[in-house]
Amino acid sequence: MTIVEIIEKKRDSKELTQAEIKFWIEGVTDGSIKEYQTSALLMAIVLNGMSVDETAYLTDAMLHSGDVIDLSSIVGKKVDKHSTGGVGDKTTIILSPIVAAAGAKVAKMSGRGLGHTGGTLDKLESIPGYNIELTQDEFIKQVNDINVAVVGQTGNLVYADKVLYGLRDVTGTVNAVPLIASSIMSKKLAGGADCILLDVKYGEGAFMKTIDDARVLAQTMIDIGDKLGREVNAMLSNMNQPLGNSIGNALEVREAIETLNNKGPKDLEELCVVAAGYMLAQAGLVSDKDAGYDLALETLRSGAAYECFLKWIAAQGGDVTVFDDLDAFTHAAYVREVSLESEGIVQDLRAMELGIVSMHLGAGRQTKEDSIDYKAGIVLRKDVGDRVQTNDVVATLYSSNPITDEHVKACQECFILGDKEISKPSLIADVL
Amino acid sequence: MTIVEIIEKKRDSKELTQAEIKFWIEGVTDGSIKEYQTSALLMAIVLNGMSVDETAYLTDAMLHSGDVIDLSSIVGKKVDKHSTGGVGDKTTIILSPIVAAAGAKVAKMSGRGLGHTGGTLDKLESIPGYNIELTQDEFIKQVNDINVAVVGQTGNLVYADKVLYGLRDVTGTVNAVPLIASSIMSKKLAGGADCILLDVKYGEGAFMKTIDDARVLAQTMIDIGDKLGREVNAMLSNMNQPLGNSIGNALEVREAIETLNNKGPKDLEELCVVAAGYMLAQAGLVSDKDAGYDLALETLRSGAAYECFLKWIAAQGGDVTVFDDLDAFTHAAYVREVSLESEGIVQDLRAMELGIVSMHLGAGRQTKEDSIDYKAGIVLRKDVGDRVQTNDVVATLYSSNPITDEHVKACQECFILGDKEISKPSLIADVL
Repeated sequence: MTIVEIIEKKRDSKELTQAEIKFWIEGVTDGSIKEYQTSALLMAIVLNGMSVDETAYLTDAMLHSGDVIDLSSIVGKKVDKHSTGGVGDKTTIILSPIVAAAGAKVAKMSGRGLGHTGGTLDKLESIPGYNIELTQDEFIKQVNDINVAVVGQTGNLVYADKVLYGLRDVTGTVNAVPLIASSIMSKKLAGGADCILLDVKYGEGAFMKTIDDARVLAQTMIDIGDKLGREVNAMLSNMNQPLGNSIGNALEVREAIETLNNKGPKDLEELCVVAAGYMLAQAGLVSDKDAGYDLALETLRSGAAYECFLKWIAAQGGDVTVFDDLDAFTHAAYVREVSLESEGIVQDLRAMELGIVSMHLGAGRQTKEDSIDYKAGIVLRKDVGDRVQTNDVVATLYSSNPITDEHVKACQECFILGDKEISKPSLIADVL
Repeated sequence: MTIVEIIEKKRDSKELTQAEIKFWIEGVTDGSIKEYQTSALLMAIVLNGMSVDETAYLTDAMLHSGDVIDLSSIVGKKVDKHSTGGVGDKTTIILSPIVAAAGAKVAKMSGRGLGHTGGTLDKLESIPGYNIELTQDEFIKQVNDINVAVVGQTGNLVYADKVLYGLRDVTGTVNAVPLIASSIMSKKLAGGADCILLDVKYGEGAFMKTIDDARVLAQTMIDIGDKLGREVNAMLSNMNQPLGNSIGNALEVREAIETLNNKGPKDLEELCVVAAGYMLAQAGLVSDKDAGYDLALETLRSGAAYECFLKWIAAQGGDVTVFDDLDAFTHAAYVREVSLESEGIVQDLRAMELGIVSMHLGAGRQTKEDSIDYKAGIVLRKDVGDRVQTNDVVATLYSSNPITDEHVKACQECFILGDKEISKPSLIADVL
């Protein structure tokens, strides 16, 4: 077997065997296969596709290319959730304590963000003292004790994905379902969870622009789970508008806390409770998703979820006293209110563009080396369907650095006004 | 403009502009574009193709990536001929003195072989003293004096092709008409000829397996010539059987000499005279290919072509006295005659396999570093259509090293016997 034969096979639209895919990924991992060979094969995969079997073999080979986390010493079913990313997505921070308070085990490794806003780790690090680096023993003990821990990925999880992603990014080979699906699933599976709920976003602010594309990606990941013996569900959720009203790190933690205190945006709450319901059903703690929904809602309404949240943050060194004064927690040196020069009904909020404004305010990274301004971000004061009068405040911008007229103008352009009476589209389109 | 955008464009089956192709090849040449990016683009080209315009832009960009030979100080039209390569192909050695003796200017740069048998340079170097390295001045003076010189390619001719070919060879991207055509044509055009005759081989012993594939490649190269202002014709010739009866370096030189003395195989002679007729017509020395055919044949029959051959070899330092005793010239330390164990009529001679036997005898290179045994090779004693009796000698094997039973067996297997009376197919299928 040679890598050239493997490349030629995929070039000629033939199906690769498990042994061939393993040979490739092992060669990527030990460096014996050259980057120029891998990039040619990646392009052949982009153009000729991969079957479900091939995609599962690829996922399996990748997940064994680095550390595989052993969570067997955690008692009970380990649930995990993955979102394909969107603007204002703070669901992990809300969902995790809901399902943990209801009895599921959340042993979660999370990533940092690049572009738009920060990732979950960046958001959690806006809480003073929060420590993302636990030892394996500390991590497992915390989950056994309080059902939840969220840490950074170990450096050597799915090593091959780092190589492949680095290459895909500079060779026009990012956009292919088998490659996206195997990248996500190999990391989730290496992380050791028994059950996985995927939140596949579609729309203007998401990687998948249409619900059809999102459905194909979701089904592929479910199929991979089937082949590799993990229970996987996938929600298809709308990311044409930002999720909730806040974008930015401390601002999103605040919105998560408000949601955990039953004072958050209703659509965000609904998304989290539905998702939690599926996760509780996957974990076998309830008979089905509807019973899961009821239990999740009860956990939220009773305050048990928020109590679990406080325990979790404190267990990882976070200073929970900062939550006593949320205005102080989200206080930024510079604040500007944004209004529009015209009137109408908000038809659309440009999620991707709002993410970029937020990044320019300091909430995200343009390169891996950039540092994050935890205070920076946007709070939307008007939602899709709301009527806006001239000089109404539609959004507030926050930053530790001066906020320019360009920032304000870019934010204004994200509000699309019209005459039509509309209601905000529901967040969850389907669950597979 | 970035290389990622260019890769994505070709990935999405869009046509690249001249500026984009130039940007790519300049980046390949100065090293600013990474090999893994080029290999991804190559795979996209293999799978999505290139238009005639794109292929001509690629050829033009490549030909300017290294030295471009200036032959303007040679008086008269410079003709060149390129064969896509086959087993036993010694046409350059026969054709060049024919057209040179008839008045055309042959200023030819040739290559070494890899695999099968040697290239034209290797064949010429089987003549003691033959010098493939002339200075530019010596090269031009020799062509002005005696109409013909055949030298090695300068190290820096079409630099980008060396990079691309090296990558294509190890990334499964050799086999694509735009890449093959631009590689051949850029070298021919950088070599400075005014008129080019292509001999595109098809069949079992050639790179293109079918006449249809050969026709597409030939037409693409003619189109490139059109776009870039050179006169190009292309013969489609059959390479299911070896060309002539001899395979190997000194053995092929001997067969070329015999042909120049009107004692060679008739089909090889016919191919050379037809090709020479086209080249003389391209050079404007005759009114058309038929008049060219007559002139070429006259030059051959009169001995003028052989006289020109001797002058050419002597001018480049070759010892022409070795041709006085051709048996001594082709004498090898080891010789074995091959016969078959059955009887019948030769239905087929496996060209590619005979080339490989010849390589194993020492006539070709398996890697660039291998040295060549000039004496090694095969002389076929029976041709397609000949009747073979048990114990008839069908071939003779030559080598400077002991010839094994495996060599003999491999040669025997190249003779396909049957009952059917057949005649050897004609060599030239079409001329475009």
